[in-house]
Amino acid sequence: MMVLYATDVSLYSAKVAIALEHKGAAYERRAPPGGTYRSAEYRAIVPAGTLPAIDDGGFVLSESDAIIEYVEETRRGPPLLPADPRARARARYASRIHDLRVEPRVRALFPFVGAPQGAPAEAALDALREAIAALPALIAPSPFAAGAAFGLGDCGWAPTFFLADRLAAALGAPAIRYDPAIRRWRDALDAVPAVRTVMAAYPGAVEAWIRSKIG
Amino acid sequence: MMVLYATDVSLYSAKVAIALEHKGAAYERRAPPGGTYRSAEYRAIVPAGTLPAIDDGGFVLSESDAIIEYVEETRRGPPLLPADPRARARARYASRIHDLRVEPRVRALFPFVGAPQGAPAEAALDALREAIAALPALIAPSPFAAGAAFGLGDCGWAPTFFLADRLAAALGAPAIRYDPAIRRWRDALDAVPAVRTVMAAYPGAVEAWIRSKIG
Repeated sequence: MMVLYATDVSLYSAKVAIALEHKGAAYERRAPPGGTYRSAEYRAIVPAGTLPAIDDGGFVLSESDAIIEYVEETRRGPPLLPADPRARARARYASRIHDLRVEPRVRALFPFVGAPQGAPAEAALDALREAIAALPALIAPSPFAAGAAFGLGDCGWAPTFFLADRLAAALGAPAIRYDPAIRRWRDALDAVPAVRTVMAAYPGAVEAWIRSKIG
Repeated sequence: MMVLYATDVSLYSAKVAIALEHKGAAYERRAPPGGTYRSAEYRAIVPAGTLPAIDDGGFVLSESDAIIEYVEETRRGPPLLPADPRARARARYASRIHDLRVEPRVRALFPFVGAPQGAPAEAALDALREAIAALPALIAPSPFAAGAAFGLGDCGWAPTFFLADRLAAALGAPAIRYDPAIRRWRDALDAVPAVRTVMAAYPGAVEAWIRSKIG
């Protein structure tokens, strides 16, 4: 059976888990050996040393979008990409916007959790707010990133929006504002069974992580 | 005809141009209106405001890998992805390694060209050297990223390696060392007609840019 190496709090682990759940792919979820992607044992399996990764009968692959495209091409089940090339392109584009513009700005908040706040934390929060405010100009969900069906372009967003909101609160900042079009997208995402399955466990992992930082 | 918005010195413009040349796709290359991706006129066409982008009969798309996959799915010509799912995954993975691990570390050198050197420049060069030294553990070219045929996983590397070398020299630093496996890959890349076509113009653009910085 395909193995998914993942940790509970990793956004990209959640993104790929949502894709696998939506596809209905059989997989066994495992923590990286030693419990962290930094372990030598994990790097012996996954040379890039990043989470998540899959091991599909000895074929090891990391990078979330490469994994999701591979799963789409090797597993039966609900499609993760639409049939029309323009819709497929919009899905891939939405996933890149997640990976390159928004997720890095959520990640940039991690060092401020349980640490002294100040101008750098404010600047990091402002950058995240800007990235989220810019989304309606980049992605026009209807209701999903590439149209009627949930897929690749949608997989990362529910955990990332959740963590953005939770970290803003943990830093004592005002709530992040979402454009109505993005709020409707979030509602549509939250109703997808694969998203509900993965997001049932995600908040608890985030709370445990925040407590470990704030003490 | 498909329009490619590109600038001469942009690494991602070169990456996509190489893909289009290899595919044999008909396209018209245009500079962004106002000559820069920062112009309001360009952002009115390409909401993300990044280079490169395509306009294919009114369908506008940015993000290099999304563009290349779209071209692969809509144009006849030599394949940019192999047929085997694992080889396709290796190609996509190699392109992500380029985009996420190596290109950003070349880009990080830009501010030091024509500016005071020192510890930050040294650190940026060391980070790039490390990323290039790590490549043989991540990608095993034979001779190309995904096997016998040139494709998506290869498109970004020739301009990026060229610029890495040129910027190390511009910063007065020792030459970057490449593992023999990566040197053989570079040789294979340099022999690909699409790479030769695009790389015939690229060094001149880089020299003009460096002169504009060094004065």
